[in-house]
Amino acid sequence: MMTEFEVQGIPVSKLALDYGTPLFVYDGDVLVEQYEGLRRRLHPKLEMFFSLKANPNVSICALLQSMGARAEVSSAAELVTAIRAGVLPEDIVFVGPGKSADELAACLDEDILAIVCESPGELELIDQLARLRGKVARVALRINPAFAVKGSGLTMGGKPRQFGIDEAQLNELGNAARRFPGVRLMGVHVYMGTRILAEDVVIENTRRVLDLARRVSTLLDFSLELVDVGGGLGVAYFDGERDIDPSVLAAGLEPIIAEFAAASPRTRLAMELGRYLTARAGTYVVRVRYVKTSLGQHFAITDGGTHHHMAAVGIGSFVKRNFPMRLLDGADAPTESWTVTGPLCTPNDTLAKGVALPPLRPGDLLGVLRSGAYGPTASPVLFLGHGAPAEVLVHCGRPYLIRDRDRTEDLLRPQYLHDFSALRVPDRRTDSPQLKELKR
Amino acid sequence: MMTEFEVQGIPVSKLALDYGTPLFVYDGDVLVEQYEGLRRRLHPKLEMFFSLKANPNVSICALLQSMGARAEVSSAAELVTAIRAGVLPEDIVFVGPGKSADELAACLDEDILAIVCESPGELELIDQLARLRGKVARVALRINPAFAVKGSGLTMGGKPRQFGIDEAQLNELGNAARRFPGVRLMGVHVYMGTRILAEDVVIENTRRVLDLARRVSTLLDFSLELVDVGGGLGVAYFDGERDIDPSVLAAGLEPIIAEFAAASPRTRLAMELGRYLTARAGTYVVRVRYVKTSLGQHFAITDGGTHHHMAAVGIGSFVKRNFPMRLLDGADAPTESWTVTGPLCTPNDTLAKGVALPPLRPGDLLGVLRSGAYGPTASPVLFLGHGAPAEVLVHCGRPYLIRDRDRTEDLLRPQYLHDFSALRVPDRRTDSPQLKELKR
Repeated sequence: MMTEFEVQGIPVSKLALDYGTPLFVYDGDVLVEQYEGLRRRLHPKLEMFFSLKANPNVSICALLQSMGARAEVSSAAELVTAIRAGVLPEDIVFVGPGKSADELAACLDEDILAIVCESPGELELIDQLARLRGKVARVALRINPAFAVKGSGLTMGGKPRQFGIDEAQLNELGNAARRFPGVRLMGVHVYMGTRILAEDVVIENTRRVLDLARRVSTLLDFSLELVDVGGGLGVAYFDGERDIDPSVLAAGLEPIIAEFAAASPRTRLAMELGRYLTARAGTYVVRVRYVKTSLGQHFAITDGGTHHHMAAVGIGSFVKRNFPMRLLDGADAPTESWTVTGPLCTPNDTLAKGVALPPLRPGDLLGVLRSGAYGPTASPVLFLGHGAPAEVLVHCGRPYLIRDRDRTEDLLRPQYLHDFSALRVPDRRTDSPQLKELKR
Repeated sequence: MMTEFEVQGIPVSKLALDYGTPLFVYDGDVLVEQYEGLRRRLHPKLEMFFSLKANPNVSICALLQSMGARAEVSSAAELVTAIRAGVLPEDIVFVGPGKSADELAACLDEDILAIVCESPGELELIDQLARLRGKVARVALRINPAFAVKGSGLTMGGKPRQFGIDEAQLNELGNAARRFPGVRLMGVHVYMGTRILAEDVVIENTRRVLDLARRVSTLLDFSLELVDVGGGLGVAYFDGERDIDPSVLAAGLEPIIAEFAAASPRTRLAMELGRYLTARAGTYVVRVRYVKTSLGQHFAITDGGTHHHMAAVGIGSFVKRNFPMRLLDGADAPTESWTVTGPLCTPNDTLAKGVALPPLRPGDLLGVLRSGAYGPTASPVLFLGHGAPAEVLVHCGRPYLIRDRDRTEDLLRPQYLHDFSALRVPDRRTDSPQLKELKR
């Protein structure tokens, strides 16, 4: 029998009352556990870089930073967020296939650890921008490897991609780089896949990336100061999945990292972690507004949905798989099958289909668990004018509001209303007398 | 041979310089053509309600309103938008399966034409809120019909749904409604599907909805003041699709509407139009940042993508179909095959795959055409911290900025930074002396 869901002793019903719903609640203890559980087992040479894209809230980043996390960012906004959260520039890498000149300039001005360069054209632009500033840019090359290791949700190697530089093109690039006085090649970055749940896949990826990095630095004749082995560690969302065991992962990585570190003691080693650090910490708290039965099927219509949690809804996937969900403020057994939907005017707005829950009533609180990664910022928050939800981080027993709920005025503020009535074309249609009559 | 893309004589390259990219540009002439082209052919009794969800910008709504469009809204923000755009409350309907009490209260306070009620629980809530205000709410019932008409992108009838009330449950609901002094049933709403491109499907849907509305009003014994026949009119996006012909549609609807209007002259008839009115007017303008070749495939990496135009990217669909795309600022023939991607760190961020384009260079402007519906507001604009794009409406030969581009500070404004460093658990990990050395 389940009791009311609590976060560090605070009943979720209190959080829902204090901050309203829909609400994302993050448990700082889980963030600490995810970070420290891996950190204390991992070879100390392998540094943990938080991928802000998974959850770019500045306070989430600050909490991870307070434990020692570095940052992997992909936009000017993420760079600013990481710096405000206290991450040192020397602990930040910037990754992304389409960086703007402004973003590259910010990387140079902030003097971050490395710009991860993804194309020859970008290398040329970095050179120009660095020379304008009288600087030499530290550049890591992102490689699109010729190999792939099976077992990730989205395998990246061995295919044509917008990311990185094909292994086969490295020679050409190396020659180009030598012509660029504003660029110093100093690192290698490879990203092998996402949502990986098998420790051996991460271990094998890491081994191959380190080998590749050595080959690249030898081929292009630069000193390897940084290898970013990517990451892609997942968490279990669906039936039949199991979480990565940090002990197994760390033990498998140990000899590989130890060997590399012994041979290359001055090379920093980075692993990127986004989903793995934040997903388990987050709960999407929604309140049931209506219940109904349609053609024999139970529906609970809640105040949350696609616009805040597209991943749980699984837009466009052929087989709907449910994120873990539970009744948060009750203790009854899950004896019924429910379809839980949101307020949007589309049948796709379905948080869970045929999920086992107790009998539901309006006012009940439901939680989508493991929702701390790729939540609102990866969802169409503006859709139908609902706006982003509030977000609360509970840490050391105290709730902290870390993001305001969007209000109507927040959504309308960036818009401009122009009056087009005076500009109308002459054949303006007005109401017929008949319609005027009807509209009395 | 194509020349540079212009909007009412303004070269797109000038718009891109003046407002930056990525940019949504709307052509007011096309909005007028879409609206008036249907309006002047349609039976005058069938009123055109603009579904704001397709494009909720207040100036887009104002332009449509200036031609006589009414409004169908689904949230408090959309209601406020429609009213600010000049739509009269008596021309607004509010639809949606999960309306909040606040939204229902706003409907009552603004005295809109009708609340479209979707469940018995909502009916009860409307009654309570109306009686608190000493009002009687005008309520249209949304019916989940027992029938379905094939031919829409997403057929709605004949299935269990979160929307509306099953036909079979109407008797029960009617009895309930009679107990609610704060509710006056006065209309029927049915929505049959979306992205319909066959005129005969819309015509058949309309005929059936009008029949159903008569049956419902007779069964529940109320006077039919409004029938909302839904809509779901699509536009052609993909190869092999063709646009709806407004003449064919209007001619097919004419006898049905005429007959209904003759029998029920005091009943207002509403058709909802979203995508049909705005999609063709919009162009998503992106600039190529980098070009590269990976394993023989041409990639153009632009400054726009999924976060602004998820529909074009087609997230999660198994077969990638390209929206119409062209080079905007050049006149060369499309002789090459390109994959056009965005700046996000996901291989899904693909605006077009294997699309025929001329040879591309950094700085080129590409346009995703027919992008005026379900654009940025239906996309994860916050993803990776890129924010919403600027939007410009060109009307009577003049460009109007109708939405500011999000800047970093706009994205960070709603967030709160808390300092957790003092709260750290005692086993805080600090850099090893070795790492400190490396980070000198």
